[in-house]
Amino acid sequence: KRSALKSRREFVDGIKSGSRTILSQAITLIESTRSEYRELGQEILEDCLDQTGKSIRIGITGVPGVGKSTFIESLGKQLLEDGKKLAVLTIDPSSSRSKGSILGDKTRMPALSAHENAYVRPSPTGGTLGGVARKTRETILLCEAAGFDTIFVETVGVGQSEIKVQSMVDFFLLLMLAGAGDELQGIKRGIMEMADMIAINKADQKNIKKANQARQEFKNALSLFPAHESGWEPPVLTCSALEQIGLNELWEQIEKYFSLTKENGYFESNRKKQAVYWMNEAIEDQLKDRFFQHPNIKKELPILEKKVATGSISSFKAASDLLKLFEH
Amino acid sequence: KRSALKSRREFVDGIKSGSRTILSQAITLIESTRSEYRELGQEILEDCLDQTGKSIRIGITGVPGVGKSTFIESLGKQLLEDGKKLAVLTIDPSSSRSKGSILGDKTRMPALSAHENAYVRPSPTGGTLGGVARKTRETILLCEAAGFDTIFVETVGVGQSEIKVQSMVDFFLLLMLAGAGDELQGIKRGIMEMADMIAINKADQKNIKKANQARQEFKNALSLFPAHESGWEPPVLTCSALEQIGLNELWEQIEKYFSLTKENGYFESNRKKQAVYWMNEAIEDQLKDRFFQHPNIKKELPILEKKVATGSISSFKAASDLLKLFEH
Repeated sequence: KRSALKSRREFVDGIKSGSRTILSQAITLIESTRSEYRELGQEILEDCLDQTGKSIRIGITGVPGVGKSTFIESLGKQLLEDGKKLAVLTIDPSSSRSKGSILGDKTRMPALSAHENAYVRPSPTGGTLGGVARKTRETILLCEAAGFDTIFVETVGVGQSEIKVQSMVDFFLLLMLAGAGDELQGIKRGIMEMADMIAINKADQKNIKKANQARQEFKNALSLFPAHESGWEPPVLTCSALEQIGLNELWEQIEKYFSLTKENGYFESNRKKQAVYWMNEAIEDQLKDRFFQHPNIKKELPILEKKVATGSISSFKAASDLLKLFEH
Repeated sequence: KRSALKSRREFVDGIKSGSRTILSQAITLIESTRSEYRELGQEILEDCLDQTGKSIRIGITGVPGVGKSTFIESLGKQLLEDGKKLAVLTIDPSSSRSKGSILGDKTRMPALSAHENAYVRPSPTGGTLGGVARKTRETILLCEAAGFDTIFVETVGVGQSEIKVQSMVDFFLLLMLAGAGDELQGIKRGIMEMADMIAINKADQKNIKKANQARQEFKNALSLFPAHESGWEPPVLTCSALEQIGLNELWEQIEKYFSLTKENGYFESNRKKQAVYWMNEAIEDQLKDRFFQHPNIKKELPILEKKVATGSISSFKAASDLLKLFEH
């Protein structure tokens, strides 16, 4: 038999005392499709806000096969040894928890999953990318309230998710592999340019020459892009997560980034900009939700879309017609 | 004394008969801030739709100083000699017609401005980028109804405008200059990757060596990006618009692009996708307009934005509070 739901106060106290169990339950509320659970989740979040914002938030991406799990496990273990508290979140709009991704996440990061100062949470399931991203951002805040001082947000590196993630993290790390000149294959336009660091993974003994070559190529490519607003010049490093090579240097660079941006004010101004961005995203999401869920719109939209595609009605007239249906 | 407004029928007939004067007046309706004029403009547009879609639409961008005006004037003259009818539109959200940009446009493209088969229209003024882009897209349709078979849409190449332009043109041309390894300076992230062609302008006698070098560098850079959905491999050319060098070859490549994409179906499917994209843009625009123009929102938004930036309320709570104000 299911136990009764905790009170708002019990949730907030539990999270602030660092209980991972209660944190998990609160995140489940945030992710719920039931509106009364979501509302409770929002109330809990509001009460936790005073304990948020103090972590460093790092986005990590790369194509499947680049070794993200091993990388996060290796780097994460090192951070835990240094006394950090680490939360690892994932954004994958295509994921479905029923396919066993909870088990999957525990299997692919066994050391982190078992460690008392780490918290691994798989991607929220279902819904649009916007919805998945919103839930992840709220989860970041809850994790911070629970005392996690380092947050990793992992994405798959093949789509739009990275842009959403960039708007919720302070630092964006792109993992790459050394290849034969085609390093960018599979990396969507624009992802490379938003990276604050490129790390070429699997640069072990037999790969080191190719990796160094790739490193030089990426350096050249990055040098062609305009300077980052943060004042930071994205470095290109090589590492081997499996053999634990290069991770110290990599983390030093990340710490340098945070020193620089906290000193020059970019860290703070970027966080403020992100918060206002998310408010506007939330407004748009909710407006669109109401529009596209409206029964008149659901009925007429496919008909008008067809007419627009064949050119028998202009895009603008179709939009106006739909807006009228929405308001009546 | 101002003459009485023409009827919807007079406008439509005038446009379809190819009158540039009536075309100009109809575009002014589209761009008007007065809602009754805009509505008439929309009605005219609806009646013109059966004559639209038959042109080729080409976006042209590059940083200030790259020689866009001279390029468009030179290439345009050549197209007019071949019997084409050319309309040149501009998107520049920062432009203000009162600063004399009509005169400016006539001065910077004197031959096109004077030619009976060409039509040069400066950027719509005022409003957001979204609004400016919408007006330009509607202007494309009106120009097509007036018989123009080739449309150039020019942007400045330093911002978000290019993404909007890409969604209204079939082909996207990026003009560049040869430099000393810093060719991408000033070109925003992502613009290079959306180009269907890069042309290095000002490649005349004394610049030819540098230009060829730059050409090779751009070729290398482009080869790193994933293949275009169109099946087209963006070429990198050199030209001198001022000395009319390389423009024939350039136009041949553009014609090749249109042969390819009309044959493989991309041209048609892309146009359909663009139309539906614009319908959705129009829906979002109109929804947001209504929201942000609401008196309650105008009053409360700045207050909540401040609270969100300082972290005293979550982005999501602020958005929900505003939505409630909007609905009551």
